[in-house]
Amino acid sequence: MTTETDSSFLAACRCEPAAHVPVWFMRQAGRALPEYRAARRHGSLLDSVQSPDLAAELTLQPVRRYGVDAAILFSDIVVPVASIGFGVALHAGVGPVVERPFTGAADLSRLRPLEPDLDIPYVLEAVRILRRELQVPLIGFAGAPFTVASYLVEGGPSRDQAKTKSLMYTEPGLWAELLDRLADISLVSLQAQIAAGAQAVQLFDSWAGTLSPADYTRYVLPASRKVLSGLAETAVPRIHFGVGTGELLRLMAEAGADVVGVDWRVPLDEARLRIGHEVAIQGNLDPSVVLAGWEATRAQAERVLSEGGGYGHIFNLGHGVLPQSDPGVLAELVAFCHDHHPGP
Amino acid sequence: MTTETDSSFLAACRCEPAAHVPVWFMRQAGRALPEYRAARRHGSLLDSVQSPDLAAELTLQPVRRYGVDAAILFSDIVVPVASIGFGVALHAGVGPVVERPFTGAADLSRLRPLEPDLDIPYVLEAVRILRRELQVPLIGFAGAPFTVASYLVEGGPSRDQAKTKSLMYTEPGLWAELLDRLADISLVSLQAQIAAGAQAVQLFDSWAGTLSPADYTRYVLPASRKVLSGLAETAVPRIHFGVGTGELLRLMAEAGADVVGVDWRVPLDEARLRIGHEVAIQGNLDPSVVLAGWEATRAQAERVLSEGGGYGHIFNLGHGVLPQSDPGVLAELVAFCHDHHPGP
Repeated sequence: MTTETDSSFLAACRCEPAAHVPVWFMRQAGRALPEYRAARRHGSLLDSVQSPDLAAELTLQPVRRYGVDAAILFSDIVVPVASIGFGVALHAGVGPVVERPFTGAADLSRLRPLEPDLDIPYVLEAVRILRRELQVPLIGFAGAPFTVASYLVEGGPSRDQAKTKSLMYTEPGLWAELLDRLADISLVSLQAQIAAGAQAVQLFDSWAGTLSPADYTRYVLPASRKVLSGLAETAVPRIHFGVGTGELLRLMAEAGADVVGVDWRVPLDEARLRIGHEVAIQGNLDPSVVLAGWEATRAQAERVLSEGGGYGHIFNLGHGVLPQSDPGVLAELVAFCHDHHPGP
Repeated sequence: MTTETDSSFLAACRCEPAAHVPVWFMRQAGRALPEYRAARRHGSLLDSVQSPDLAAELTLQPVRRYGVDAAILFSDIVVPVASIGFGVALHAGVGPVVERPFTGAADLSRLRPLEPDLDIPYVLEAVRILRRELQVPLIGFAGAPFTVASYLVEGGPSRDQAKTKSLMYTEPGLWAELLDRLADISLVSLQAQIAAGAQAVQLFDSWAGTLSPADYTRYVLPASRKVLSGLAETAVPRIHFGVGTGELLRLMAEAGADVVGVDWRVPLDEARLRIGHEVAIQGNLDPSVVLAGWEATRAQAERVLSEGGGYGHIFNLGHGVLPQSDPGVLAELVAFCHDHHPGP
């Protein structure tokens, strides 16, 4: 079992000196790996999540294959709301689909508090298995209230989040109540994952980048802060991630993050200016570059490492691994980061 | 016919004092208007574009309805490449679909130079009709080379632009040649629109926001500069627009823009810091706000006008009008901008 002091990942999360720049990949457990496709041949994604042995195996695969410095639990951000019976399915290639979307106050009662031991025992069992098996830290995760709300309101993925924003603007009281309930669900889920053994957590606000800073501050930040500040006493590093969030980076740090995830649009040295030096940074290679092979990937990784500054930096892609990625290129990328020695 | 000095829109484009903050809306001619849906009942979008009288009528509708300070020609960014026979269709609700996508050097020959009088006579005829009918300036437009290339390479809209970026990274010579040809096509199209009477132009780089600043600078900026600098001698204002381009705003100005379009993610005062005071700014109300009704729209419009600073600012949405928008709210919004008096 990893001790805290062994881990370059945990050190970088705390802006402490690390032996090398640590690296892991969002969606590292996924369809890019032939062993993943083989293991997932039968059953739905939710079936896999609900089988602790399979979820643990899928979590371990990329650690074996790539030699990454952290594992992230195989699960999905809608698992908690699905587990309390909101009626969420995961459709391959589409994402979450909600049978009866959230449309008004009457739907609040469909969001009862999460009881992790009863509602998501399989998640906690997977965490416990993984803590026995893993040599690197395990990252637990949850969806941020805004992003989960957007799935519940839109009924599925949406490009413009129009229904979600309409609710937000026209019924601010109901909106705040919805986000508060989702904050409680994510907080309780993360607390339970930490109690079961997760050594870091990531809060995914994948859709927050569709908001202006003014709207994010008013309508979203309070709920995300409730989740992140609720974890402060655990002392477990909290990573806060979104896509297209260049203008929100400082706010996402202020919500209570130890690490802010940055997509490839914002150079890490610029992101550092916005976030400050107290908070670590995670990112930010464009996942599309990996498809162009090792030479293109190496050139861009060098730039990312240089912009990252070699301190308080967790190397990652700017978003999830694309399914058509070559695992060989990702393995080379991990070795390259480990060999990288930041300048003076 | 408008004279140059009458137009608040043209004045603001040149950072000159204007009687009021001018306003127009991207995709103001569109499905939000019942008169548009009635006029477009028969035939495809390309049919409408190719009928000068209908295209002119669709262009005029929002000017009558909303009282906007500029008209934008009803057309589409793929019209020039479609007109030279590349095989592009426009599918309702999907966007451009390319029958045989661009995959290699052999496809370059399918991109012959544009001859506007022969290839897009209907566009030029619509411009001439509109100059006779309009009391406000007419904006012509073209697709920026990157965004048009992405449609030709992906075969249609794409979320991650993975094929486009793969080509860009692995075959930089071919990529440069592709973008250079598309730059010539857009430049020639815009020159012809200006010769026919367009009084401003907008270069749409709708997908550029998927690029890091490093990639934009190396792989995209030279071709966009070729288009914009090729128009310098016309002295017609050049608007350069993209979505999710917070980190690219300065580069998009440097490409040769008189006005930079900003989406709702970047507050206009922050955008101004990035762009400088020599270049005007266009934007940036979140189009989703309009769906929430007039009160929500008014509150956010007030913020946008305040952040815009009342000088060198063309009010617009941060992206196109959503089809489900209420035209009444948009009309109120125009009146509100016209009544707005910037502070000292």
